[in-house]
Amino acid sequence: SRSYRIAVLSGDGIGPEVMTEALRVLDAVEAKFGFTTTREERLVGGAAIDATGHPLPPETIASCEQSDGILFGSVGGPKWESLPPDIQPERGALLPLRKHFGLFANLRPGVCLPSLTHASPVKNELIPNGFDVLCVRELTGGVYFGQPKGREERDGEPVAFDTMIYRKSEIDRILRVAFTAAMGRGKRLVSVDKANVLATSVLWRETAVEVAKDFPEVELSHLYVDNAAMQLVRRPDSFDVLVTENLFGDILSDEMAMISGSLGMLPSASLGKQKDGGLYFGMYEPSGGSAPDIAGKGIANPIAQILSAAMLLRFSLGENEAAAAIEAAVAKAIDDGFRTGDIATGAAGETKVGTTGMGDAVLARL
Amino acid sequence: SRSYRIAVLSGDGIGPEVMTEALRVLDAVEAKFGFTTTREERLVGGAAIDATGHPLPPETIASCEQSDGILFGSVGGPKWESLPPDIQPERGALLPLRKHFGLFANLRPGVCLPSLTHASPVKNELIPNGFDVLCVRELTGGVYFGQPKGREERDGEPVAFDTMIYRKSEIDRILRVAFTAAMGRGKRLVSVDKANVLATSVLWRETAVEVAKDFPEVELSHLYVDNAAMQLVRRPDSFDVLVTENLFGDILSDEMAMISGSLGMLPSASLGKQKDGGLYFGMYEPSGGSAPDIAGKGIANPIAQILSAAMLLRFSLGENEAAAAIEAAVAKAIDDGFRTGDIATGAAGETKVGTTGMGDAVLARL
Ligand SMILES: CC(C)[C@H](C(=O)O)[C@@H](O)C(=O)O
Ligand SMILES: CC(C)[C@H](C(=O)O)[C@@H](O)C(=O)O
Repeated sequence: SRSYRIAVLSGDGIGPEVMTEALRVLDAVEAKFGFTTTREERLVGGAAIDATGHPLPPETIASCEQSDGILFGSVGGPKWESLPPDIQPERGALLPLRKHFGLFANLRPGVCLPSLTHASPVKNELIPNGFDVLCVRELTGGVYFGQPKGREERDGEPVAFDTMIYRKSEIDRILRVAFTAAMGRGKRLVSVDKANVLATSVLWRETAVEVAKDFPEVELSHLYVDNAAMQLVRRPDSFDVLVTENLFGDILSDEMAMISGSLGMLPSASLGKQKDGGLYFGMYEPSGGSAPDIAGKGIANPIAQILSAAMLLRFSLGENEAAAAIEAAVAKAIDDGFRTGDIATGAAGETKVGTTGMGDAVLARL
Repeated sequence: SRSYRIAVLSGDGIGPEVMTEALRVLDAVEAKFGFTTTREERLVGGAAIDATGHPLPPETIASCEQSDGILFGSVGGPKWESLPPDIQPERGALLPLRKHFGLFANLRPGVCLPSLTHASPVKNELIPNGFDVLCVRELTGGVYFGQPKGREERDGEPVAFDTMIYRKSEIDRILRVAFTAAMGRGKRLVSVDKANVLATSVLWRETAVEVAKDFPEVELSHLYVDNAAMQLVRRPDSFDVLVTENLFGDILSDEMAMISGSLGMLPSASLGKQKDGGLYFGMYEPSGGSAPDIAGKGIANPIAQILSAAMLLRFSLGENEAAAAIEAAVAKAIDDGFRTGDIATGAAGETKVGTTGMGDAVLARL
């Protein structure tokens, strides 16, 4: 039977407890759809710092290298906040993983289900049917990794600098991911840049116009990043797919996640180069953080982690039926009124559940 | 009697019509508070392109140089959108004005009055008393102006680059403006950076911690820019003063303006070095754009322009009483129910007015 290897990196905070639910769901679809996965659980983030002194130990990287994809929980917490940035759990684990595996394409769905608009901070009359945006963020270029980066003394004072830099081929490949995604959805793509100020954005916009020729069915438009930050607030439901560079994508995808109102529901995928057969090596993780304030209480929403497992099945294993089954079961559990605290209103017809209860509700609907 | 020179740059779109109301209000406070202004109206933006081929003609700069401050309307519109960025109205006028006059400190109030929360896209229960944030944006440094910036060929493909760069003294001076502003308000300052990734942000954060020692009464905290973009959506009323670098400030101040729900009410000030006597040379303009879709219809909200004139009186002319009188008259006009279309709900007690009607309402309350 079909068999795969998955590196499981639960990390810190709510990571381990929501991961437990995702793995239970994975067990269930394996039995149902006839495939198996070998899972290697490895240390990452604060847990890895405590055990080994490093947020991303070599054994963890080695295990990821042997795998077909990485299921990631979340990292970070107050305990490690005063460490130097380089070895903090978030930065010291996420950036090296992205760079090492060339994970240049970050897919972040920003979904507000029609039944969950109450949880959005935005007025319900602005999003009567919720919304469903896909944010495609370039993840290995731009000012995050550009050289030179550092500090020197000039005219007797410190001067610090970072370099925002893009090769045309880096822009081209992320745009193709976004156009392809748009083809499978509403066929509308908004490319976000700051082409009135940045040279990198001018190249970005030119490349978008060129790549668009290969996707004549997709309607391409451009927004400046400041305007995009505004439009996401007022008209999130006007977007289909949004594509942008690394730093802008960091800001806008988080803004969008907050606007959706249910961070605990949002998965993400970070993909590398496409392999033969159309699959990707990738890393899959909830969009929200490690939420140390609610960790260990059994109340965290496991849906983001469960849907991250579904994305792994689709993009890295090609188990599309199993992925779709998970997504349908999650939708059904929400439809049937199951609510963790983050999305509950106390209205009639809701069943308030904890982490395991939500896992049970999804499992029962598989 | 006290007399001043003002450069009046109305620009495009709704600029001229809202400027008319601001100048009427200025006439009234001059008579009341015993000072005079000489006003030189000069071309800028699209209007200047049409007349002279350039968005910022030398005569306009010369006139600004002779003035105590610039009252700016707004620039841009569809007519000039296909020009190259460098000579487009927005970029070709705003960036050179900022650079020429060293306008490094951009003050952007993000205010949602308790009586106007309905106009905010955010749910009213999240902002029961509205909010009042002051965003302080560094305006002449960072990736906007950093060198090198451009494009070259590498390994047979185009590569584009921008440089995000800050001298410590540039960071120090904008932080002092922000701390000083916080002292005159709620004494809470949030400094926004991306110190987990950017070298410029590490220097920014260090400098903030240092400058804080000179303002022991101000409570300083730090947020990463992605987190700030989230918190502004969910808890705009938790902020007092926010300070950040140029690009982050561009994005966050626009996001905040949209969240306030009444872009047409928000003025801004862009200040240079402080002069003797504590005054600044500065440029004052509405936060919203030229709104070409409603230009010439007499329906635009003139309050942002009127409040920009009040900021000019306070920061560049030192006519604090006149400034306060204008602000009080605006607040009274809103309290008394006067509403332009952008902030109207149709509720009982509202009087719907156009641009001139709102100007009249403010004038009547001076
Ligand atoms: C931790 C940080 C470096 C990271 C980023 O900015 O990319 C995080 O904010 C994210 O978006 O995954
Ligand atoms: C027109 C543009 C260059 C400008 C900027 O980004 O600074 C504008 O968006 C603003 O915020 O005043």
